[in-house]
Amino acid sequence: MHSMGSLNMKRLSLKSQGELLYIIGPDNEPRLKVKAGETVTVGTHDAWAGKIRNEEQRYSSVLAELGKYANPVSGPIYVEGTAKGDTLVVDIKGITPTRRYAIAVIPPWWWYHSNPGTAGLSRMLEPQLPEKIRFCEIKGDKVYWDNETPLPYSPMIGTIGTAPELEAIPSTTLASHGGNMDLPEIGLGTRLYLPVYVPGALLHLGDVHAVQGEAEICGSGMEITSEVTITINIIKGKSVNWPRYETPEYLAAVASSCAGTTLEDAIRLAFIELIEWLQRDHGFDKWEAYHLLTYVGKVSLGNMWCAAAKFPKAYLRRQLTTPTRPAG
Amino acid sequence: MHSMGSLNMKRLSLKSQGELLYIIGPDNEPRLKVKAGETVTVGTHDAWAGKIRNEEQRYSSVLAELGKYANPVSGPIYVEGTAKGDTLVVDIKGITPTRRYAIAVIPPWWWYHSNPGTAGLSRMLEPQLPEKIRFCEIKGDKVYWDNETPLPYSPMIGTIGTAPELEAIPSTTLASHGGNMDLPEIGLGTRLYLPVYVPGALLHLGDVHAVQGEAEICGSGMEITSEVTITINIIKGKSVNWPRYETPEYLAAVASSCAGTTLEDAIRLAFIELIEWLQRDHGFDKWEAYHLLTYVGKVSLGNMWCAAAKFPKAYLRRQLTTPTRPAG
Amino acid sequence: MHSMGSLNMKRLSLKSQGELLYIIGPDNEPRLKVKAGETVTVGTHDAWAGKIRNEEQRYSSVLAELGKYANPVSGPIYVEGTAKGDTLVVDIKGITPTRRYAIAVIPPWWWYHSNPGTAGLSRMLEPQLPEKIRFCEIKGDKVYWDNETPLPYSPMIGTIGTAPELEAIPSTTLASHGGNMDLPEIGLGTRLYLPVYVPGALLHLGDVHAVQGEAEICGSGMEITSEVTITINIIKGKSVNWPRYETPEYLAAVASSCAGTTLEDAIRLAFIELIEWLQRDHGFDKWEAYHLLTYVGKVSLGNMWCAAAKFPKAYLRRQLTTPTRPAG
Amino acid sequence: MHSMGSLNMKRLSLKSQGELLYIIGPDNEPRLKVKAGETVTVGTHDAWAGKIRNEEQRYSSVLAELGKYANPVSGPIYVEGTAKGDTLVVDIKGITPTRRYAIAVIPPWWWYHSNPGTAGLSRMLEPQLPEKIRFCEIKGDKVYWDNETPLPYSPMIGTIGTAPELEAIPSTTLASHGGNMDLPEIGLGTRLYLPVYVPGALLHLGDVHAVQGEAEICGSGMEITSEVTITINIIKGKSVNWPRYETPEYLAAVASSCAGTTLEDAIRLAFIELIEWLQRDHGFDKWEAYHLLTYVGKVSLGNMWCAAAKFPKAYLRRQLTTPTRPAG
Repeated sequence: MHSMGSLNMKRLSLKSQGELLYIIGPDNEPRLKVKAGETVTVGTHDAWAGKIRNEEQRYSSVLAELGKYANPVSGPIYVEGTAKGDTLVVDIKGITPTRRYAIAVIPPWWWYHSNPGTAGLSRMLEPQLPEKIRFCEIKGDKVYWDNETPLPYSPMIGTIGTAPELEAIPSTTLASHGGNMDLPEIGLGTRLYLPVYVPGALLHLGDVHAVQGEAEICGSGMEITSEVTITINIIKGKSVNWPRYETPEYLAAVASSCAGTTLEDAIRLAFIELIEWLQRDHGFDKWEAYHLLTYVGKVSLGNMWCAAAKFPKAYLRRQLTTPTRPAG
Repeated sequence: MHSMGSLNMKRLSLKSQGELLYIIGPDNEPRLKVKAGETVTVGTHDAWAGKIRNEEQRYSSVLAELGKYANPVSGPIYVEGTAKGDTLVVDIKGITPTRRYAIAVIPPWWWYHSNPGTAGLSRMLEPQLPEKIRFCEIKGDKVYWDNETPLPYSPMIGTIGTAPELEAIPSTTLASHGGNMDLPEIGLGTRLYLPVYVPGALLHLGDVHAVQGEAEICGSGMEITSEVTITINIIKGKSVNWPRYETPEYLAAVASSCAGTTLEDAIRLAFIELIEWLQRDHGFDKWEAYHLLTYVGKVSLGNMWCAAAKFPKAYLRRQLTTPTRPAG
Repeated sequence: MHSMGSLNMKRLSLKSQGELLYIIGPDNEPRLKVKAGETVTVGTHDAWAGKIRNEEQRYSSVLAELGKYANPVSGPIYVEGTAKGDTLVVDIKGITPTRRYAIAVIPPWWWYHSNPGTAGLSRMLEPQLPEKIRFCEIKGDKVYWDNETPLPYSPMIGTIGTAPELEAIPSTTLASHGGNMDLPEIGLGTRLYLPVYVPGALLHLGDVHAVQGEAEICGSGMEITSEVTITINIIKGKSVNWPRYETPEYLAAVASSCAGTTLEDAIRLAFIELIEWLQRDHGFDKWEAYHLLTYVGKVSLGNMWCAAAKFPKAYLRRQLTTPTRPAG
Repeated sequence: MHSMGSLNMKRLSLKSQGELLYIIGPDNEPRLKVKAGETVTVGTHDAWAGKIRNEEQRYSSVLAELGKYANPVSGPIYVEGTAKGDTLVVDIKGITPTRRYAIAVIPPWWWYHSNPGTAGLSRMLEPQLPEKIRFCEIKGDKVYWDNETPLPYSPMIGTIGTAPELEAIPSTTLASHGGNMDLPEIGLGTRLYLPVYVPGALLHLGDVHAVQGEAEICGSGMEITSEVTITINIIKGKSVNWPRYETPEYLAAVASSCAGTTLEDAIRLAFIELIEWLQRDHGFDKWEAYHLLTYVGKVSLGNMWCAAAKFPKAYLRRQLTTPTRPAG
């Protein structure tokens, strides 16, 4: 007797991945090909590609050694039958840590401050932070900050995106293709929608966190190596401008800041995208969606460059909400 | 036998208030004096001071009539014994609507857009919005968007603040004194901490909403007239730079954007304030607070100029968290 | 025979001013009344109201002593016959220093940095600046940085504005009423246009600089005490949204950042105002103005919150440019 | 006898260029190799790669046809002997238009607005612009806006940059490698310094404008096809973080906004770079440079994402200013 899993499951292990990628772009060579409907397990490395081995290392030395080669991603996965203008649908089915600990760092120089405005001077914590490396044990459904402080193991994919049409974007940054969004809700049970710009979509992912707060204020999550299990589908001929996702409770539209814009602009843009989604797929009048969101809308932050505007699915009109059905 | 309430309760009704205020400043004449520990009920008008009387009015005409006289506040309440450098503590005990409906509007010109950046053009919903006035019935613990769509009655105080030291600030805006923050969590069961800049603190409040989403994207909440019941205390000789609040679950530090800064800066600043709070009052090492917040921190938005950075009280160290005890 | 000057010239000396003002607001008591067409000489104090007396003082101590009482302004001057919706016209005829030196400071804490973005970390000069007070001699048309480095004496009015309608704004900040704009071109030979919000306009001014660069990166100009000579006129029934000015070469529209917006937004807004000016008063089609400005427009900065968008008067169409004729 | 020119001059004509580039990246194949000290003439196409042929075309149709293939650049030029950490020095010796006209467009959708802030609503010109294509004749040292309005022919290179280390950046955008800066002063007689990230530097350039104002408010300059003559040198072992340039009058340090930052941040960052330049190469104490710049600094804008902070060379200390001598 064989399991269904063994029939459908494909695997892109870290070993078969070979060289990790630090750029998400259209020229990256596919490492795995899948069909719509298939389930894949992907090995992901941590944000330092394993260069942190114990708590005694100096974090600034690790960073110096990495240079621009930080936050590696696995992939790309080529999805057969996809073309520019389609939507890629990724259901996150499992995230298993492959080490017994997560790594939590304080960087030496992530000056955490606010900008100077007329209301007063800028504020900062301190110019030089006391850099630190901390290993946190993962046990059962907890990750231990210290012996008395278990945090919930709430794994999420920090970096996931398709290839842009022309440019090659560092895996440390983010844009309409996805990328380093660091959204805590892109985790188990979430369905993610991504734009497709090139044939095969070219899905890249990595940077998995055991747990992370909103805004990710020290600049990295609780980083783990992992095996991520996802089911991939496509929606033909229907595009999204930016990533979107669904949790059991919410529809969420994502946007990020770009050169000349800030998180505030990303939040505004995410709401515009969300309103268009409610209008296109959920039978809302545009202004009704805008108006109702004023009273029931929520915002979730990823890192300081990424926001999701959210609509509670409880307020979807029942007659209209035939679930989005991906091809497959 | 008489109730404690009748002994302690003071009242600033809309009638005793007389003229409403559109400026929060140190020269506003006190309308009520209270002592630390006293409970007060304050009548508040809606954001249009009653000029919206039915759904058939044209909202742009109402706005033209109001000019700069929008978003009135009641008060100020003079708190005896307070001085510059103290902290005012406001416990929100009750918010009772005084009409059977809340008012929800779409403004004619609240162009909802994101700023133009290099990643593409700016986006907007539309330059001209289809202005609308909608009355939503309040019944039991619900406010009805329409017959099939009850929203939870979750009342909150949109505008609350003490007088600044020198300037007089429109009640439509916000700064370190509080003001028009529109934070959904400044509602029932919340304890609010406000800076004191002038003798008596001079507390102003108004702009109560039956329910409101984060970011308040059409620019006003579901506006009600109300009676707000608060208990006022003071912490002598201990100051806060910005408003803070506590809910049963969270400690929250608030900050807002100022000239030259955006919501992104407000979020950063709120986290700095939160870290300092954890350090000063809850036994945290500064860097431990910064580090742990990276994994458990949350962000709540008020309107697009106001953010709260939040720490789950579950992670307060038990031995250290003697509850903040206001004088009174 | 007496001079015309003695007939027309009014004077608001520092002595007759009495108490200086730190707030620009509608409730400030007029210190002088003038008619349209009159010329006034106004004494202005320096940004520290004289509390800096020598180079050996510690600047941080001066600041601690001042608290919020910095950047005093003289006035207000009540201009008879003006009402809300008019435009105030101020021609700057003379700026005479009343001491032999200008004061140049490095503040202890004006952290000069850029905000953190994805392209890298934020940058700052250093968290703690080496505070300094430096007296620079004014001689002839020069102000001496040191013996070998004469800078041109190019005096300008750092803070000038009319009273807002409702609020009272610190003289250290700026908004559509003018205020602390720190524009180097608001100097000799410039005609300034200001909005009128209240009867009498209530003109306030101060914060005169011997010379200042764009962006004013250490936060104050080369500060002097002075006598400013201005001729005041009004344009009845025609309003401006923001300050505007004319130099011999340029028409300039001014805007500043507000809560939630940055200097970038101020620049965009200033161009919109400039286009509307070219359209309303100079016979341009709106799109022709927009288009031509793309090739000939200039931008001047005041401090980091204030920008002027400029159109070279050489490109005004000759037949249309009947000079704006103020009433008087 | 032959001219020096014919000995030294290399040429990368549009014909020898072949396919134009829309991405500036490390994997672009060199089209020409030069040695330090050599002078090169480079053919550049216009921002629409020639797809605009007359004033009757519909600009939105041209844009639809281009898609992401706008703003082509020529190159890359491989400079022998350069390595990561060097500085590339480019002297602009000539810019000759290769057609008799420049092209000036109004785009259909470049919504020109300011962001919404608390001081009022956002402003915009209009949501839909009246798109237009206008050919302006170039004759002698003028380019004619119309028959009565000659503008000075002031050619500049809109897009010029070296290859980044890892990523491939659209030629329409900008970052620390240079790129689409649109600085009017990057023209005749200017010496430009660029960072080198990869062997050979890989210089790309294009997007030449006959004339352009600061901020480039309709989104493109007065675009020409051209032959650009530059002399290329290198400074070994000395790096710059961002582009810098020298005109006869000024030293200028350039910076641009990135995701999460705005033009305001770019200006701050440019000043920090300028101060470091004065300190490293011109004998200034860091704080003296900061302080003096407060009084003599200037700012020039390129497009709305690019700023240059400038120091007048008149204030360089004579004994210290041995001119930067590029190797060659």
